Amino acid sequence: MSLPTAPPSGFRDFLPEQVSARQRVMETIARVYRSFGFQPLATSAVEDLQVLTGQGGGENEKLIFKLLKRGEALDRAVADKTDLADLGLRFDLTLPLARWYSKHGSQLAHPFKSFHMGPVWRAERAQKGRYREFTQCDIDIIGSQSWGAEAEIIGAILAVFEQCGLHGVKVHLNDRGLVDAALAAAGAAADKRAAACVSIDKLDKIGRDAVLAELIALLGQDPADALAKSLLGSAASASPALAEISAAVKILAPSAEIVIDPSLMRGMGYYTGPVFEFRHASLSGSLGGGGRYDGLTERFAGQRTPACGGSIGFERLMLILEETGQGGEHPALDAVVTVFSDELRGRSIEVGAALRAKGLIVDVFPGSGKLKAQFRYADQKKAAYVVVIGPDEAARGVLQVKTLATGDERAMTLADAIVTISA
Amino acid sequence: MSLPTAPPSGFRDFLPEQVSARQRVMETIARVYRSFGFQPLATSAVEDLQVLTGQGGGENEKLIFKLLKRGEALDRAVADKTDLADLGLRFDLTLPLARWYSKHGSQLAHPFKSFHMGPVWRAERAQKGRYREFTQCDIDIIGSQSWGAEAEIIGAILAVFEQCGLHGVKVHLNDRGLVDAALAAAGAAADKRAAACVSIDKLDKIGRDAVLAELIALLGQDPADALAKSLLGSAASASPALAEISAAVKILAPSAEIVIDPSLMRGMGYYTGPVFEFRHASLSGSLGGGGRYDGLTERFAGQRTPACGGSIGFERLMLILEETGQGGEHPALDAVVTVFSDELRGRSIEVGAALRAKGLIVDVFPGSGKLKAQFRYADQKKAAYVVVIGPDEAARGVLQVKTLATGDERAMTLADAIVTISA
Repeated sequence: MSLPTAPPSGFRDFLPEQVSARQRVMETIARVYRSFGFQPLATSAVEDLQVLTGQGGGENEKLIFKLLKRGEALDRAVADKTDLADLGLRFDLTLPLARWYSKHGSQLAHPFKSFHMGPVWRAERAQKGRYREFTQCDIDIIGSQSWGAEAEIIGAILAVFEQCGLHGVKVHLNDRGLVDAALAAAGAAADKRAAACVSIDKLDKIGRDAVLAELIALLGQDPADALAKSLLGSAASASPALAEISAAVKILAPSAEIVIDPSLMRGMGYYTGPVFEFRHASLSGSLGGGGRYDGLTERFAGQRTPACGGSIGFERLMLILEETGQGGEHPALDAVVTVFSDELRGRSIEVGAALRAKGLIVDVFPGSGKLKAQFRYADQKKAAYVVVIGPDEAARGVLQVKTLATGDERAMTLADAIVTISA
Repeated sequence: MSLPTAPPSGFRDFLPEQVSARQRVMETIARVYRSFGFQPLATSAVEDLQVLTGQGGGENEKLIFKLLKRGEALDRAVADKTDLADLGLRFDLTLPLARWYSKHGSQLAHPFKSFHMGPVWRAERAQKGRYREFTQCDIDIIGSQSWGAEAEIIGAILAVFEQCGLHGVKVHLNDRGLVDAALAAAGAAADKRAAACVSIDKLDKIGRDAVLAELIALLGQDPADALAKSLLGSAASASPALAEISAAVKILAPSAEIVIDPSLMRGMGYYTGPVFEFRHASLSGSLGGGGRYDGLTERFAGQRTPACGGSIGFERLMLILEETGQGGEHPALDAVVTVFSDELRGRSIEVGAALRAKGLIVDVFPGSGKLKAQFRYADQKKAAYVVVIGPDEAARGVLQVKTLATGDERAMTLADAIVTISA
C-alpha cells in the first residue's frame, strides 16, 4: 500500500518561495519588535492540559489537540475510564506567556517587554483559509498600567506593517471597561452581559438592526435601546485612555487612521481594558489585534499583574502580501557551476567555494549528466550566471561564464568571473 | 488551585538571551545553506500516523506523540476498542521530507537541493540534555546518484560550523554498502546482519573486545573473526566513493579532519550507501550526521529515488557554542528613553521614534514611575544610553543623554543625540 503524500487535512506544506517569503516577514517582525526594545521569549508547543484549560481561553479550549497518554498510563486511563490525555498543543501564545512569565518574570527588567512567535494548533473544522496549524506573532508588555504600553504595542505593530510594505492599515480602538459600564448603565442583567458582547461584536458582520434585534431578545427592549445609543450610536463616547492612546499612536504612525469603535469586543474573555484591532480594506476580518488583560497571570502567580498585548495575524498578513506581491524574496541564486565529468567535479567544487567565499550564492550542480540538463537546472533555479569548466577550460585555467538573461558567454579567469558575477 | 508555572517534563522555556542565540544560529545555518543553492521547505508538525509508522523510522516510531481523536471519532474508537489516534507529531524531518517530495517533487529543479528546519518531538524518558521537543536542521539532495551530493552536504555542514565559530569538527565516514559486503563475505546469516550492525556501531562506546564478544555470540566464531579483520581492523578498506567524497570535502573545508571509520553505522534503518557523522573533542556523541538513503521515497511515490541528506544536532551545537561563549548576540539596546510624566510621554515617544528612524534600537519606558526605577530598567536591559526629557528639557527643546558605562551626562539637541548614540 502506498502512503499518503498530502499533509493531514487542515495542515500545510510550503514550497521554497513560500518558506522564503514567510521567513523574511518573520525576520522583519522580529527586527521591528527588537528596535522598540522588546525581547524574544520561547515556550514549547506542548503544555499541561490544566494550563491550557485553566482560564480565559474561551471557545478555543474546545479546539485543543490533546496528546494521547502512553504505555501504562494509557492502559490505566482506558481501564479506569479516566482522562486519556494530560498534555496538549498550545492554541495561542498568550496562556504560555502567562505561565512563562509567572516562572521567569522575577529575573527580568520591569515592565517586561517581550515578543513571542511560533506555531499554534487548533482543531478547527478545515476550510479555505482556515488552518489547524498557523503562526502567531505576539508582543506584550507586562507590569505597566500606563496607556503608554498600549500605544507602543499598537505603534510597533503598525511599524511592522509599514516595514513589510503594507500601507493603509486602520486601527479600531475600544475600551472593554467602557463596554462594561455601558452594559451596567443600560441595566443589562449581569449573567447576560457576555452574550450581549458577542452580539455587539457582530455589528460589522450582520449590521446594526440585526444586532439590536438580538439585544432586544436577550436583554429586553429598554436595555437594548439604551445600548443602541451608548455603544451602537454615532455619539458613543471614548474613554480618556483611548484619547491618550490615539494621540500617542499618531506620533509613532502619523499616517495611521484610528477609529474609535464602541462595538469592538475582541472575543477572548480575558480582556479588561482597551482593546484594538487592525484592519485593511483588502481583507474582511482583522489583520491582528489585542488589548489589556490585567488578570491573566493571576491563576499562575496568585497576583494580578497589569499586562497588555497584541498579535499579528501572520497567515492573513502573508495572504495580503502575496496578493500585492510584497512577500519579499531572499537573495536569488548568483550562479550555477556545472560539472563536466566526475574527473572535473573537483575543479567545479573549487570554483564554487571561491565564489561563495566572496559572498555569492553559488550552486555546484550536485548530480551528473549532460550540460543541457544542467543549463535547464540553472534556468529553473533562476540563476543569474552559469559557469562551465570543460577539459579545455580546465587546461587553460579559465571558466566559461554565461549570462542567462542575455545569452552572452565569455571565457575569463576566476578573478574576472568574481568581478562579473558580483556586479 | 494555582496552575503549574513550569513547562511539562522534558519540555523547555527559553529566556530572551537564549532565544536570541538560537535565532542567530538558525539564521547562520539558513544563510550558509542558501549560499550553496539549497532551498528551504517546510512541513507541518502533525503527520498521519501511517506516514510516521510506514517505514524506516526504527526505534523512533515507538516514541511518537499521538494526537487523541476528537468528538464522535473518539467515542467510536473507545466503544469499538480501535485506534485512539490517527495523527502524530513528527519525530524527525526526513519522513516528512520524503512525503513532501513525493507530492511536490515534480515541480522542482532536479536534483532538488533542500533544507528543512524546525522542531521535532519524541516521547523520550526525560533526562539531562535530552528533550522531548528539539530542533533539527536537515539538508538534502534528492535525485542525484553522484558522490558530489555527499561531498556538498558534508561541506555545507562544515561551513555552518565554521561560520558559527566552531572549529576542529571531525568528519567520520563509512559506507553502508561496504558493511553489507563485509557481512556477506564473512558469512553472517542474513537475519543477523541488522543486529551485527548494532553491535559494530557500539565500537566507540564499549571497545573492540566487547564488540567482538557480541559478534561471536551472535554470528559464531568464524564470521566474527572475519568481521574483526574487515570492519574492526586497522586495515579496513575504504570504498572508491569514500575516497572521492574525502577529496571533495577537502576542497570545501581544507582544514577538516576526515576519518574513514568502518564501524560507523548511523542507526536509522534507511541508509543505503555512504554515511557520515560530525564529532568534536568537547562533546561525547555526535554533532550531526547523515548519509545516502536511496529507498526512502519509494513507499510514497512508488519509485526508488537516489537521495542523500545530513542533519545538524542543533541542541548539541547550541550547547557547545554556549560553553565556548560563541552563541552570538543580537545587537544590544542603544538607548532607553525615560518618561518623566504622562504629560511628557508624547515627547518621549516622539524622541524614541526619531532615534529608531535612524536605525537605532530604542526602548521608550513603557510604564510610569520614578526616574531611578527607569535607570535601573536601562541597566538591566544593558542599554548604552539613557535619554531624559523633563519639563525643563522639554521647554528648552533639548534632551539629557547619559552614557551608562561612564556616567557622563550632557544636554544636547535631538540631532546631536542621534550622532552621539549612533557613534
